[in-house]
Order: sequence, then C-alpha cells, then structure tokens
Amino acid sequence: MADRIRLGMVGGGNDAFIGAVHRIASRIDDKFELVAGALSSTPEKSRASGEALGLPRVYDDFKSMAIREARLKTGIEAVSIVTPNHVHFAAAREFLKRGIHVICDKPLTSNLPDAKKLVKMAEASGAIFVLTHNYTGYPMVRQARQMVANGDIGKIRVVQVEYPQDWLSVEQDFKQAEWRTDPARSGAGGSTGDIGTHAFNLACFVTGLEVESLAADIQAFVPGRQVDDNAHVMLRFQGGARGMLWSSQVAPGNENALRIRVYGETGGLEWAQEDPNYLWHTPFGEPKRLITRNGAGSGDASARMSRIPAGHPEGYLEGFANIYSEAAAAIVASRSGETLPEDVIYPTVQDGLKGVQFVSACVNSSKRNAAWVKLDH
Amino acid sequence: MADRIRLGMVGGGNDAFIGAVHRIASRIDDKFELVAGALSSTPEKSRASGEALGLPRVYDDFKSMAIREARLKTGIEAVSIVTPNHVHFAAAREFLKRGIHVICDKPLTSNLPDAKKLVKMAEASGAIFVLTHNYTGYPMVRQARQMVANGDIGKIRVVQVEYPQDWLSVEQDFKQAEWRTDPARSGAGGSTGDIGTHAFNLACFVTGLEVESLAADIQAFVPGRQVDDNAHVMLRFQGGARGMLWSSQVAPGNENALRIRVYGETGGLEWAQEDPNYLWHTPFGEPKRLITRNGAGSGDASARMSRIPAGHPEGYLEGFANIYSEAAAAIVASRSGETLPEDVIYPTVQDGLKGVQFVSACVNSSKRNAAWVKLDH
Amino acid sequence: MADRIRLGMVGGGNDAFIGAVHRIASRIDDKFELVAGALSSTPEKSRASGEALGLPRVYDDFKSMAIREARLKTGIEAVSIVTPNHVHFAAAREFLKRGIHVICDKPLTSNLPDAKKLVKMAEASGAIFVLTHNYTGYPMVRQARQMVANGDIGKIRVVQVEYPQDWLSVEQDFKQAEWRTDPARSGAGGSTGDIGTHAFNLACFVTGLEVESLAADIQAFVPGRQVDDNAHVMLRFQGGARGMLWSSQVAPGNENALRIRVYGETGGLEWAQEDPNYLWHTPFGEPKRLITRNGAGSGDASARMSRIPAGHPEGYLEGFANIYSEAAAAIVASRSGETLPEDVIYPTVQDGLKGVQFVSACVNSSKRNAAWVKLDH
Amino acid sequence: MADRIRLGMVGGGNDAFIGAVHRIASRIDDKFELVAGALSSTPEKSRASGEALGLPRVYDDFKSMAIREARLKTGIEAVSIVTPNHVHFAAAREFLKRGIHVICDKPLTSNLPDAKKLVKMAEASGAIFVLTHNYTGYPMVRQARQMVANGDIGKIRVVQVEYPQDWLSVEQDFKQAEWRTDPARSGAGGSTGDIGTHAFNLACFVTGLEVESLAADIQAFVPGRQVDDNAHVMLRFQGGARGMLWSSQVAPGNENALRIRVYGETGGLEWAQEDPNYLWHTPFGEPKRLITRNGAGSGDASARMSRIPAGHPEGYLEGFANIYSEAAAAIVASRSGETLPEDVIYPTVQDGLKGVQFVSACVNSSKRNAAWVKLDH
Repeated sequence: MADRIRLGMVGGGNDAFIGAVHRIASRIDDKFELVAGALSSTPEKSRASGEALGLPRVYDDFKSMAIREARLKTGIEAVSIVTPNHVHFAAAREFLKRGIHVICDKPLTSNLPDAKKLVKMAEASGAIFVLTHNYTGYPMVRQARQMVANGDIGKIRVVQVEYPQDWLSVEQDFKQAEWRTDPARSGAGGSTGDIGTHAFNLACFVTGLEVESLAADIQAFVPGRQVDDNAHVMLRFQGGARGMLWSSQVAPGNENALRIRVYGETGGLEWAQEDPNYLWHTPFGEPKRLITRNGAGSGDASARMSRIPAGHPEGYLEGFANIYSEAAAAIVASRSGETLPEDVIYPTVQDGLKGVQFVSACVNSSKRNAAWVKLDH
Repeated sequence: MADRIRLGMVGGGNDAFIGAVHRIASRIDDKFELVAGALSSTPEKSRASGEALGLPRVYDDFKSMAIREARLKTGIEAVSIVTPNHVHFAAAREFLKRGIHVICDKPLTSNLPDAKKLVKMAEASGAIFVLTHNYTGYPMVRQARQMVANGDIGKIRVVQVEYPQDWLSVEQDFKQAEWRTDPARSGAGGSTGDIGTHAFNLACFVTGLEVESLAADIQAFVPGRQVDDNAHVMLRFQGGARGMLWSSQVAPGNENALRIRVYGETGGLEWAQEDPNYLWHTPFGEPKRLITRNGAGSGDASARMSRIPAGHPEGYLEGFANIYSEAAAAIVASRSGETLPEDVIYPTVQDGLKGVQFVSACVNSSKRNAAWVKLDH
Repeated sequence: MADRIRLGMVGGGNDAFIGAVHRIASRIDDKFELVAGALSSTPEKSRASGEALGLPRVYDDFKSMAIREARLKTGIEAVSIVTPNHVHFAAAREFLKRGIHVICDKPLTSNLPDAKKLVKMAEASGAIFVLTHNYTGYPMVRQARQMVANGDIGKIRVVQVEYPQDWLSVEQDFKQAEWRTDPARSGAGGSTGDIGTHAFNLACFVTGLEVESLAADIQAFVPGRQVDDNAHVMLRFQGGARGMLWSSQVAPGNENALRIRVYGETGGLEWAQEDPNYLWHTPFGEPKRLITRNGAGSGDASARMSRIPAGHPEGYLEGFANIYSEAAAAIVASRSGETLPEDVIYPTVQDGLKGVQFVSACVNSSKRNAAWVKLDH
Repeated sequence: MADRIRLGMVGGGNDAFIGAVHRIASRIDDKFELVAGALSSTPEKSRASGEALGLPRVYDDFKSMAIREARLKTGIEAVSIVTPNHVHFAAAREFLKRGIHVICDKPLTSNLPDAKKLVKMAEASGAIFVLTHNYTGYPMVRQARQMVANGDIGKIRVVQVEYPQDWLSVEQDFKQAEWRTDPARSGAGGSTGDIGTHAFNLACFVTGLEVESLAADIQAFVPGRQVDDNAHVMLRFQGGARGMLWSSQVAPGNENALRIRVYGETGGLEWAQEDPNYLWHTPFGEPKRLITRNGAGSGDASARMSRIPAGHPEGYLEGFANIYSEAAAAIVASRSGETLPEDVIYPTVQDGLKGVQFVSACVNSSKRNAAWVKLDH
C-alpha cells in the first residue's frame, strides 16, 4: 500500500471520542495511514495514547510535530485536528504554514476573528483544508443535494432543519460535556456551535443556498450553564426562501436527531441522520417515495459515496469516511497537479467561516432580542 | 332515544367539507339528533341540502332559524356553526342571544374586535360555547396533557409544534381553497388562521402554559396570494419555556402533519396527528416508550375518550366526536343545573379569542420584521 | 330520517365489546336506526342493557324478538348478531326464516356442519346475509384489492399475512377471554377462529384468490388452555401462489397487528391494520411509494369508502361502518328490487363458510402433524 | 502496527461484491493487514485484482498460496475465503491443513457431505474457523441474545424470522445472480442457502435454541430457475418453541429485509436488519420500549460491539467488522495460548454445518410435500 497518504493527528488521545472516529474514517477506504500524532495537550498522555495505537512517531505537542514532520522525507502529508475548538486555530496554523494539508473538526475556531485569519492562512498556504462537516458525506445527503440541483423539487421555498440531542439535559461533568460547556474552550456558542453549525451547514449544502440573515432566541436552560443549550432560529435565504433551525441539547428522547426537510415549488425532500439510508421524496401531487441508498431512484451522487448494495445500511462512520475519501482525492490530485473532478466535494475553510459566523450571529441576535442579523457581520 | 340533544346546523351544505364532519361527530356517541338547519348562505342550496339530509326543519338563513327554533317547544338546544370564518360572529350572536348553546368551528372569528365582542356575548348569555379545536379531543393528546400535569416530564423547557400541509402549493380554485385564501372571508391569517391556530391551541392545551409573546416571519409564497401560506413563529411562554411553531400550506409531502413535541426537565413527549393512537414518552435516561391508546401505560384521561381496545385505531372523526361528547356532557349538566365533572374539558370561547389573538400577533409581528409582540394586544 | 333502516340487535349487552362497535358502526353514516334488541342470554341483563340504550323494544330472547318483529308493520328490517360464536347459528336461523336481513359477527358458526346448514338457509331465505369481516371495509384494503385486480403488481406469487395479539399471553378470566377460550362457545379454533379467520379472509379478499390447501402447526402455549393460542400455517392458493399465515394471542408487543403483504411478478403491496391509512406499493425496480387514503395515487375503490380528506386518519370504526354502509346499500336495493351496483362489496355467508373451513382445516392438519388439508373438506 | 494479523484472501477479485466487504470489515478496527491473495479462479484476473489493491503477494490459485504462505516466516496467519459456495470446501482444506486460520463466507459448503468433512478437518487442524454469519455481529443482535439469556422475555414460545429480497424477481444475468442460481456452484438451495441460512442462524443465535425439525414448502417462481427463490418453513425448536421462517428473492419492495421477532412467556423482542440500531422490547403488560445501540437500556453485550455513541448509526460494515474483531481476539489468544474471554463469540464451523443441514432439510422436506424433517439428517 505504498501510496496511502501519510497522516498525522492532533488531539484524539485515549479518553477522546472524535479522534477514534477520525481514525476509523481514515481507514475504511484504505487511503490513509496514520503515522504520527500529538494526541493530547499533556505530553505524557500524548505518549501513552500514541503507544497504545502503535504510532511510529509520537510528539509532545503539535508544534514540534509540525516542525519535525515537515522536515522528514516521508513526513506526514496531512494532519487531522481533533482537539477542543479553541485549539483548532493555533494547530492548523502550524501545519498550514508548512504546506501540510489539514483535516479539521468543526467548528472551525472558537471565535470569529480567528476564523477569518485562518481562512486567509489556508488560502495563502496552497494546502488543502477540509472541515469535517461529516454529515455532508452521507450518500443520501448527496442524493438530496443532487435532486435539488437538478430541479426535482423546483425553486426552494421552505427549509426546516433541526439537531436536537438530550445528553446535556442535566449538568454533566465528564470530559466531553465539560469543554463543550466552557466558553473559553468551545467558543460563545453551546448547542449552536457544537451541533447548530452542522444543521446550518447541512441546510446550505443540500439547498445550495446562502443564508442572508437570521433571528435567534437562544437559551441556557440548565442552571449555571454559560453557553446556550437550546436555540430557536429563523432563517432568510438569498433568493427568498425561509427557514427554521432548532438546535438543542436538552430535548429528552433525542440522541442525534439531525433532520432536514426542504420544500420547493414542485416537491419536497426529507432526511434524518438517525435513519440515513432513506430519503423521502414527494413530487407535488404524487405519492411519497422512499429512495434508498443505492436503491431504485438513487443516482450518481449517492452511488459515488456508497460501498455496498441497497438494504445493507451504511452509517455514520461511512459518511465520515466519505469526507476522508474526498480529502484523499483532493490530496492525490494535488500531488500530481491534476484538476480535481467536479463531483469531488468537501467542506472547506470557507464553510468553516460561515459556521462561526452563524454562531456569532445567533449570539448577537439573541442579545438584541432576536433582531435580524446578517451572516457576514 | 328521547334524550338526544336537539341540534341545528348553520352552514355545511352539499359542497362543504367540515359540515359533514360535524354531523358524523355528533352521531358517533348518539347524544345528538340533527333536526334543523340553515345549511347555506343561498336559500335554495340550504333547502336542497336540508332535503338531501332528511332534516325535519330547513331554513333559508340562520337568523330565521334562531328566531323560530327559540320559540318551538322542542326547538334546537344547540347549534353547530360550520360556515366560513367571517360568518361565525353574526351567526353565533343570534343563537347566543336566545340562549341556544353554540358549537362553533375555528377560528372563532375573522378579526379580533369581533372575537372580543363574542366573548362578552357568550359570557353574558349563559349558554355553553364550544369551539371545535378538535385535535384536543384525541385520546393521546389528553394523555399527553395529563402526563404534563402529573409532572411526568418535569418543568417544560421547549415546545416544538408544527402543522404543515401541501394542498395550497399551487393556486387552487375550488371552494375550500377559495374562501380560505380570501382575507374578507378567512380573516387576515391564511395558514396561521386555518391551521396555525390549531397548532397554537394544541401547544397551550398539552402544556397548560400560556404564550406571552411571539415573533413571526410569515410569507405568501404562491404568487398573487393575499394571505400567508407559510409562517415561522418563535414563542415565549409564561414561566420561561420557549417554543417554535410552523404552519404551512406549501410543504409537499405533508397532508395534515400536525405534530407536537414537548420537552421538560425530566422527559419528553411526542405526538403526531396522522398517527394519533401513539404517544412517545422518554423519561430522561431511559428508553423511549410507545404508549398506545388504551394500551399499557395509558391513563384515565385517554381512556375516557376511547371507545375500543388498543390496537384498533380510532381516528379524526372519533377525536372530533369527543369534543361533541364533552359538549353534550356540558349541555346535559346545564339542563339539570348539575356541576360539570372536572374531567370534562372542551375548548371555550376564551380559547377562540386566544386563537384570533395569535393570528393578529403573527400578522403584526411580521409587519414589524418579526419583532416580539404580546399575545393580548 | 324516515328511511333509516330499522335494525335489531342480538347480543351486545352492557359488558360486551363488539356490540358497542356494531352500534357505532351502524350510526356513522346515518343509514340505520337501532330500534329493538335481545341483548343478552339472560333476560334481566337484556332488559337492563336495552333500557340503558333507550331502545324502543327490548326482548328477553332472540326467538321472541324474531317472531314479534316479523309481525310488526314497522318491525326491524335487519338484525345484527353479536353474540359468542356458538349462538350465531340458532339466532341467524330465526331471522332468516322470517326474511329479516342478517348482519352477523364472525366466525360464521362454531362448527362446520352448522356453517354449511346456515349457507343453505341464507340462500333459501332471499334475505341478505352480511358477515362482518370488518377489515375488508378499510379503504386501503379496498385500494389494495383494486390494484391487484388491475394487475398493478402482476400475477401473485407470495402472500404473507399475520394477525398477532398478546392479550392471552397469560390466563385471563374476564368475559371476553373466557368464552373465546372455551371450545363449547368459540368452536374448535382459538386464535385461528377469532383472528386467523380475519387474516385468512383478508388474504383472499385482497388477492382475489382461493386457498386450495393448507398445512398447519397449531399450539396452546398457555397451560390448561383448550384451544390454540398460536398457529403457523402454510397456504397454497389456486393458480400457484404460496402463502404463510400466522395468528397468535401470545406475542407480547402486538395489540391487533393484522398485516398483509402481497408480492406479484411486477410489484408488491403492504398494509398494516394498526396504521390503516397507508398502503405501500413497490413497482419492481422503482422506489417504494406510500399511498394514503384519499391521497395521491389512491383510486375509486378507496375513495368510495372514505369520508374525509387525506391526512386526517380514519380508523377501525369507520372501516366497520363501511361494512354497514355496504349492507345498507344492499338492503335498500333489495327494498326496491334494484340491482346492486358492482362496486358494493360485503363479506357473505359463503365467506363465512370458508372461514369455518379454514379453522377446521387448521385443526385437522395439525392433528395430522401438519399434513396438507384441502379447504373444502 | 507491528501486531496486525497478516491476512490473505481467496476470491474477492474486481467484480466481486463480498470480497470488498471483507476487506473493509478487516480494516475498520485495525487488527488485520491484507498481505496476500488469490483473488480469482482465473490467474490473470487474480493478478490484476491484486495489483489494483496493491497487495504485496499475489497468487494464481489458492493452493499455491497456501503452500507458499505456510513456508514464509511472515506468511499469512489467517485467510478469508470469499468465493462462490462450491469452492469453500477445497480452499478451506488447503489452509486448515497448514494450520492457517480460516474466515469463511457462508454457507459453509455447497453440499452436506463436504460440510461434515470440513467440520472434522477444522476440528483436527487446531486452527480457528470463523464463518461470517455477519448479522450476529450487529450490536443489537447481541443485545437481544443477552436479554433472552438473562430471561428478560421468559421462556421462548414463538420465533418469527424472515429474510425477503427482491432482486431475483426477474431473471438476472450478471455475475452475482448467475452463480447464486446455479446449483453446481451455490448448492441445492437458492434463497434457502443464500439468505435462509442467515435467518436460520440468527434465530438460533438470538434464542440460544436448536431447531429440531422443519417442514418446508419451497418454490422457484421465476421460469427456468433451478433453485428455490422463495421458501416457507415451519420450525420446531427443542424445548417446545415454534417458529416460522420465510426467505424470498422475489418479494418486490424488500432489499435485505432480514427481521426477527421473538416472543416469550413474559415479553417480546423485535429487530430488523435495515434499521439495525434499534431493538424493540415489550415486557408483557408494559409499553413497548425502543432500545438503541449504546443508548439507555442497552447493556454490555452490545456496548462491546459498538464504536460510537447512540444516535450515530453503525451499519452493516461495522457489524461485519465485529465478526472480524472477534476473530482477531481468538487469533490473538491463540498466538499466546491464552483462554478466550467468554464474551467473545463468533459463528463456528459447527454453525456452518447447521446451515447446510438447514438447506438440505428444506430441500428434502419440500420434496416430500413439506413433511417434517429432522435437522441432523
């Protein structure tokens, strides 16, 4: 497997959740080999985690890793950044400036000024920057996007998107909850940053529309919580479509119930993350149709992202792996200077900036009693 | 069946939809006998419709009917008003002033001043006034209300309620569509008045909470339409709960997809009108439970409203009939001067006023760019 | 309502379940008026029940009722027989011999000889005989039948039908359970007679096919039970289609989970009683379609049986009422000697005989270690 | 990754389906490295496929591979056999006799005598033999098995298992269809062998029960087809439970609709492969509960097989990977001579024999007009 892409990882030590997801995602299609890591902000933990994974090269911190790997003949070509939000910026900077491709977890950064700087750095670097808005890797999300682009439901009028969870319905003190509810590490947004950005990104990805402005009513329901755990948002898209977005971490009975419904002049589409192999399509005036991944009625855009026949479900990890495979395609094209095929799509640093703008707009709107706020402010 | 309540009907002629529903609903539990009608604003149509139904007494107009029936020894005791919205006020007035009980379709009136006057008339009359917010008659809606009241999900934090349809996705010119999209007959609200009021009423009914203020972004998507066909609304409840309400008539794939989800500090409840025999209950930290009408886990409030064992679905007509049966209980108690049992519940003229206030607030908020508007203004 | 059909009832006293269902079903479309009854085998109970219902004429027993009503100028035109199974035969005989139409609960009789005799009597009498295999009254069952007849799924290959319940998972001692598990009153079949006959009838009704032979493995799982509470049956249809039928009263989690799936050379259909407003149709090679009652894709056969628009669910009682309305159409045509329109369909005494043959064949096959048994033996 | 298990593969060349599945499954948990292959029965295809995969060592045929790899110091420790059924036996023999562990696709062999011989060889060899009845790797299948073993639903009474597909509803001439409908390559069973064995294995796995005898009515509906494409089977389990099994490849609307329902004296369990992260549990007399993978109510047996939190679906490939990870645990234990932990479970050569016995019994029973046939004959 001589041509696997050499990958490093920042964050993702033993007690992390998302690092393991990135590692599996990078393996599924056999296009990456993880060879280096700075897996924790604590050097001992980084080393212990690296050993546990059998990594050839383990570093005490991401800066040493960036410096050293950039010098190695067979150093890493790409790095996955899977730390808490506030570390994304500094870590990405070190790799970008050395021309190492970056695959970064979302949200892009914990604040808007950092996000804007990072966009400039990424653009200046020539390196590829992939943001893991992983839900866009689900085949039926691609199918939905393709159908909208094909005009299968006509001009979009209404978008309903939501991402409710329930795990923060009470105060939690384990690691995953702790940093996500600390504004110093997660940024000003709670549910808006952690899951609202996914919902926002998904709405834009599927519809191909930009959000112009929003009005948000956000709230921290759990006593003492410093960031929002529930957000109600109204959206106005360019071109006149309207939307609602709900993110919540206090909705008992919802695990990761990301769901999008898009209604156009001639039809509707509905998709739910927890049952991701299904896409409901209603041409107005006809019965609802259940399109399945790789099943009758599904097209190229979803087939590209599928590994197995219809009726054998693919899940979250395969959707995540699709983002890695798109990244691999981009990196491989970049190696050889080839043009990237048009159907290769991945969330970019620009999408990351929009996510941070979304969080910022939600917080600002809510402070002004849900006044409309433009997204690019 | 000597003690069936003698019922009249205003509106509900041959080509109407809701009149037939009221007639079936009144028959299901055998507590009413329809004996008189002014079934259309056109005297000939009224007579033809009355004949087709075999009604003993048919009138040319509701006023003649009110006058005459009030004088008869065995004249009607109650009247169902099932006309387009703008006629509710004048019709109800004639019967109330003669002490005839009124069962009136929603929304209460086509404008707010009429609604306020009608409240006063109803209160002054001593007659019973029942507004057919029929969805509150579904057994599992009663079950949900009882569970919230029992504290089964703790203090309410978040309410998500929606009522999407798709039939007005294009311009329609048949009768049902025509008057509903004419502000002179339906009032200032389109989807907000026709179905948003149901969603709003349901949210208040289930949670037992009042809405303090709302911010609405309403829209008429179909070219030339004079009233809203889509409404996005954020709600603030007294006591701190927050909500979102969506009504739409342009969402392809939705027939009558009224749905409510209520989340409290210790649990969640979810109910959908199209599958009304199910109620999802999640106690936080436990698996979701599917409570079925008259099945395990359902209680008195739903059993009262059920006719048949679990697993044999009851539907819309039975839910509607439950409102009629509650009305019958109130009328029978009123005959004898008995106190109405506490578990008899029906939507009142006050609920009707709140619905009209909701429409008015939506329209006003939207005109002011979705500013927050208090409900009682 | 001068032309309501005058109806009597045998059985259905205060503590019965199915009697109340028949009464509601007879009222929904306003074509019957219940005017007489012999509501219990115990005269006092009969009288008390009749009084509670406000019946004009109450009898101590069905024979007196038949004799007297036949002599009255405005005596009953039809009688509903809703007793335990073993009484159907004797009761039906009394009314048939006097030319009074019979609407009889299923199974037709508690044994095969009685069933055969009753067929002859019914045919000789000239009266109409309707067996309330009520599930055939569901609009989407009619839709399915029509689609099969239209060739929408091609020649039938496979039929899967099942009716699981759970209420007899443990010994029960209330009235409904008691007579159903007593072979003297219910007949030789337990689950086969009570619900298996429904499943069997539904399979034949939807497919338009006759069952040629069956092989059955039946069992009484609850200790001491004298009739089957679970039956596994393989079916061979005339023309080569094959099927499986499962009836059970010991399957926890199933309330009345009657479900049919039919697969032909070019498509499939799936319907479930607990969600009766939906019919799944898959044309082979195309996405699954969800056809809804009165919604897009549904046709005349279901529209005839519907009262309200799509998205407002009709339920068990409306399906039952449809059988009554078909009966009414037949009775009205019989009054005037008109030919019954072709689209009026109701289960007949012949269908009843087939049901009893089904039970008998199951019991016989099972005794012979699940050997194949012809249905007409 | 020094300790990855060195893996070879027989079959699974460019145009195969299941080979790619095995390769992904072997990678997901990073416990195997594919280093050698004889990927096709045609040497050129084998070489081309091996090159495309970047395999270090590619062979013209499995025998050369077995001989050579057994001699290498770092030759393969295990081999995955993913050929058409009739090759399993000969291929497995070559590796087993050299002490190389075998991971073999199902069914074990294409005929019963081969299966019996292979059991003996496997037992004699000391090598580990894993049959990829992959559905037993799904976390919620493990959960179901654990709950049955814990007595959560009491003594089992009824098992309903089915595996319908639709892809062979018409004659197909591509490779996957071709060998599966050729008795020389697939064995005497069509749907029974290809998917019926999965359903059979799942029923035994979840319940912990053995099937004593069966009665089968199998059929080839598509003209000219030489093996069954639909099978109706009644099951009798040791200890008195009864079951039904349906396998079909001609049921339009079914992709891979494997489903099992198990009913015991005190509860029921229901699981469907197409929605594998859910397990329905009904304790008799209580509401149905929806247990989700890694969600509330799920236990150790499923947590062991899960990688990510509840609400992020895992799919078919992860379930398949679980079998590989169990195999890895067994191989690693075997390296060091340690005892395998009790919770490590994988389908064995004995399970494979039972599957072939199932096919054989179905064919024999059906020839004898669905007579009962013991499984071990």
